Amino acid sequence: MQRPAAAAVPGQPIFGSFGGCKRERARFRLAHFVGMGQGGAMFDPIEKLKEFLRHPSVSADSTQRAGMKGAQEFVATLLRSLDFSVEVVPTELHPIIFAERGGDASWPHVVIYGHYDVQPAEPLNLWKTPAFEPTIIGNRIYARGAADNKGPLITNIAAIAQLLEENPKLPLRITFLIEGEEEMGSPSFPKFLERYADKLRAADFVYLSDTGLPNENQVVFSCGLRGLALFDVHVTGAKQDLHSGLHGGVLRNPIQALSEILASLHTPDGRVNVPGFYDAVLPVEEWERNELKKLGANEKEYAQFLGIETFYTTPGFSPFEAVRFQPTLEFNGIGGGYQGEGTKTVIPSKAFAKISCRLVPKQEPERIKELVIATIKARAPKDVKVEFVDQHKGEAYVVVPPDRSNTPKDQSPVLARAFRAADQAVSEVWGRPPLYLREGGSVPIIAEIKRATGLDSVMFGLFLPDDNLHAPNESFNLDVMRKGIETTRRIFAALANGK
Amino acid sequence: MQRPAAAAVPGQPIFGSFGGCKRERARFRLAHFVGMGQGGAMFDPIEKLKEFLRHPSVSADSTQRAGMKGAQEFVATLLRSLDFSVEVVPTELHPIIFAERGGDASWPHVVIYGHYDVQPAEPLNLWKTPAFEPTIIGNRIYARGAADNKGPLITNIAAIAQLLEENPKLPLRITFLIEGEEEMGSPSFPKFLERYADKLRAADFVYLSDTGLPNENQVVFSCGLRGLALFDVHVTGAKQDLHSGLHGGVLRNPIQALSEILASLHTPDGRVNVPGFYDAVLPVEEWERNELKKLGANEKEYAQFLGIETFYTTPGFSPFEAVRFQPTLEFNGIGGGYQGEGTKTVIPSKAFAKISCRLVPKQEPERIKELVIATIKARAPKDVKVEFVDQHKGEAYVVVPPDRSNTPKDQSPVLARAFRAADQAVSEVWGRPPLYLREGGSVPIIAEIKRATGLDSVMFGLFLPDDNLHAPNESFNLDVMRKGIETTRRIFAALANGK
Repeated sequence: MQRPAAAAVPGQPIFGSFGGCKRERARFRLAHFVGMGQGGAMFDPIEKLKEFLRHPSVSADSTQRAGMKGAQEFVATLLRSLDFSVEVVPTELHPIIFAERGGDASWPHVVIYGHYDVQPAEPLNLWKTPAFEPTIIGNRIYARGAADNKGPLITNIAAIAQLLEENPKLPLRITFLIEGEEEMGSPSFPKFLERYADKLRAADFVYLSDTGLPNENQVVFSCGLRGLALFDVHVTGAKQDLHSGLHGGVLRNPIQALSEILASLHTPDGRVNVPGFYDAVLPVEEWERNELKKLGANEKEYAQFLGIETFYTTPGFSPFEAVRFQPTLEFNGIGGGYQGEGTKTVIPSKAFAKISCRLVPKQEPERIKELVIATIKARAPKDVKVEFVDQHKGEAYVVVPPDRSNTPKDQSPVLARAFRAADQAVSEVWGRPPLYLREGGSVPIIAEIKRATGLDSVMFGLFLPDDNLHAPNESFNLDVMRKGIETTRRIFAALANGK
Repeated sequence: MQRPAAAAVPGQPIFGSFGGCKRERARFRLAHFVGMGQGGAMFDPIEKLKEFLRHPSVSADSTQRAGMKGAQEFVATLLRSLDFSVEVVPTELHPIIFAERGGDASWPHVVIYGHYDVQPAEPLNLWKTPAFEPTIIGNRIYARGAADNKGPLITNIAAIAQLLEENPKLPLRITFLIEGEEEMGSPSFPKFLERYADKLRAADFVYLSDTGLPNENQVVFSCGLRGLALFDVHVTGAKQDLHSGLHGGVLRNPIQALSEILASLHTPDGRVNVPGFYDAVLPVEEWERNELKKLGANEKEYAQFLGIETFYTTPGFSPFEAVRFQPTLEFNGIGGGYQGEGTKTVIPSKAFAKISCRLVPKQEPERIKELVIATIKARAPKDVKVEFVDQHKGEAYVVVPPDRSNTPKDQSPVLARAFRAADQAVSEVWGRPPLYLREGGSVPIIAEIKRATGLDSVMFGLFLPDDNLHAPNESFNLDVMRKGIETTRRIFAALANGK
């Protein structure tokens, strides 16, 4: 697929090159958040985002039920105000919002996905502004969930609101699918999909913004996501904590046993040291490596951004390749014994670690869990007890854009049109065409949706490397939000206009 | 040294065999806590202990200053009520109580040591009764510090109170030395010793109860204590927590690096894997091994008590030998990343572990710290930053009782008399003579006192293996307390009477 060279200079304001009609300029002002639609459905996107961010919707934290409820009601109310028919679908944990705008069966039908839940905000003491009090500093808004996923979700809702304000009879069927368990692995999603698969199967594709872009000037459509397999390992030694003087030297400390287990799970050169772990990993397509080269990413800058001096990757892969094309086994947390001030001379009874694997296409999460757990069991010292707590999982996913050597022959024509419209819109709004890259992160439900409904996903990345996802001081770039609204608006306008 | 065979049957009430004079029986009742001295200085030991235990005197926890102050004032007030001249000696952190009962220079002079601070009570959720609300269940009193060291300290104070009530002109000089930083390694003690060394040097020996006995029927005088060397190791990877999808596969996780470091510090067969660690360790004296055999400890019962199936000791040492005669390197705590409910797919920026070594005589704590830290530095992966936080330390200590093959020729005659009086008193009160054993625990100030003043220590063990020292549900056995008061009373009575 050929793309015209970027017309605008990266880093320069590019909205100035928009078409000259008065209506376009009016929308431009709106996209700058300097005005609001008069009487229409449109709202001030930043004010709405602030309202959304104030709900501490931490799905994994059972003490935050009120925050979850608040965020869910916020989204439902917002979509109702746009005349969507909103159904709040109960699940065993957090409801899923299913909102429809019907229409003629000949109209294109897009499902817009997002999630209203966020990661825990801990450690709270590292936040410079309160995690659930959105604060604008410069061109960024700071709060837990600003980038993942509340900012991008409001971006897409705002684009639809604008389109509907411009043309209330827009020939486009739209279904919003906003869940509340993404950050805990969407445990209720498979059951929901079973019940709603027929309705969803009637759509053409899924559109979402829950992936990243490498910098403010370069849009990326993610065409692959890593899968996930998560579990905790718990090691028990003595039946209770012991005085390290009275009993030290007699038994294996569970922290020692756990360290020995964890230390065995990587080779010194950076591979996961679990037999069979890489068996299903496919070689990388040549066009993918080439597309990645166009990104022009700089290793030195990346190391500086991370604050490290040396990378540690699978041998034969650059860091940018490793993060997209290789699986990982990471330790997300470890705990045991006394962690407070000063000292406590104790031999703890228990220690634990939280393990997560990022998987590439064809690696089955359940199979990988089995392999890692079997390896741990085989290597664990026999004088401690080892137990596992299963957490969530998600399959990897890949979609190939149109006109590639390996594009599936049976690709949906509307999906192909959407990719082409996206290419065009991004080139106009951002001044250069997008890249099509696999992504290191995971949105496990994308693979679930594909399996249950056959729908592929168009993933319009909206968060930047310095947005601090899952970390203290998460933020969302308001310039990206502004351009994102305009891009999504153009993509759906083109689709509705039969382009 | 020969001892008469035990006259009473172990496990039977033995106070019933006391001498027949009326006064003895009156004291016996008191020792049963059924009455109090009429008008004298004597108090109800259990009520006093309860009062003491209600002060949450956690020296390492800066939020517990009120508890420290309360415990310190409690001790000072109690000793003043016994007509001791009490000095509360300020230190940089927690004051030391120095209380004197002077007298004729020809009288024996004993220093009684104890500490009013306790270990942290965490994890609080594992306590069956509140940690700082003493609760009597059966013949035990439950509370943090019940055994370590408030119960034993009250035991010795009660014995002195009884003696003084019986004979206010008791020909014995007594100095109480009660500190508040034992559980954090007595950082202020060396400076205090410098200032008070002259006063202390005039004494004959130190008497304390901060060690254990193997069961309710067998008293042990500890004649050795292990030393301590403590520090924390902190590992830093990226400059902040990272999303494990966006960046996973690019850098070494600090939990992985820490695990690799910790896993390298032991050999599979149970030795500390630090070059030079065992260099200064002396071979075990034959009489020590023999004395230990008399203990008749049962490995199977010990394993059941600990709740483990297999011991893990230095090769060539039984668990009972290993804990007394061998050094250790233990992990008291580990932490890093997300430890809460559910999952958080983060690559943490930092991880840490709390390390403590128990040392045997001749192992220099400072030298051992240097060796371990140098080993960690040499083995740490070069792609993470490793830092150390020094904690406290203490030297090992050994005292040889009289009439042993290796008793020092210049042993103080009053110390030798104290050991013999102790042997006699224990044989009478407990029905069998005591054993003389080195101990796995540490009371680092015992070595400090020896170095600063030349004074040796008589360590009368009073806590049982199931007292849960440093663990949830710590308790103190009230039968042991009762017998302990009577034993200490007899020892000091004999010393005062020139026996």
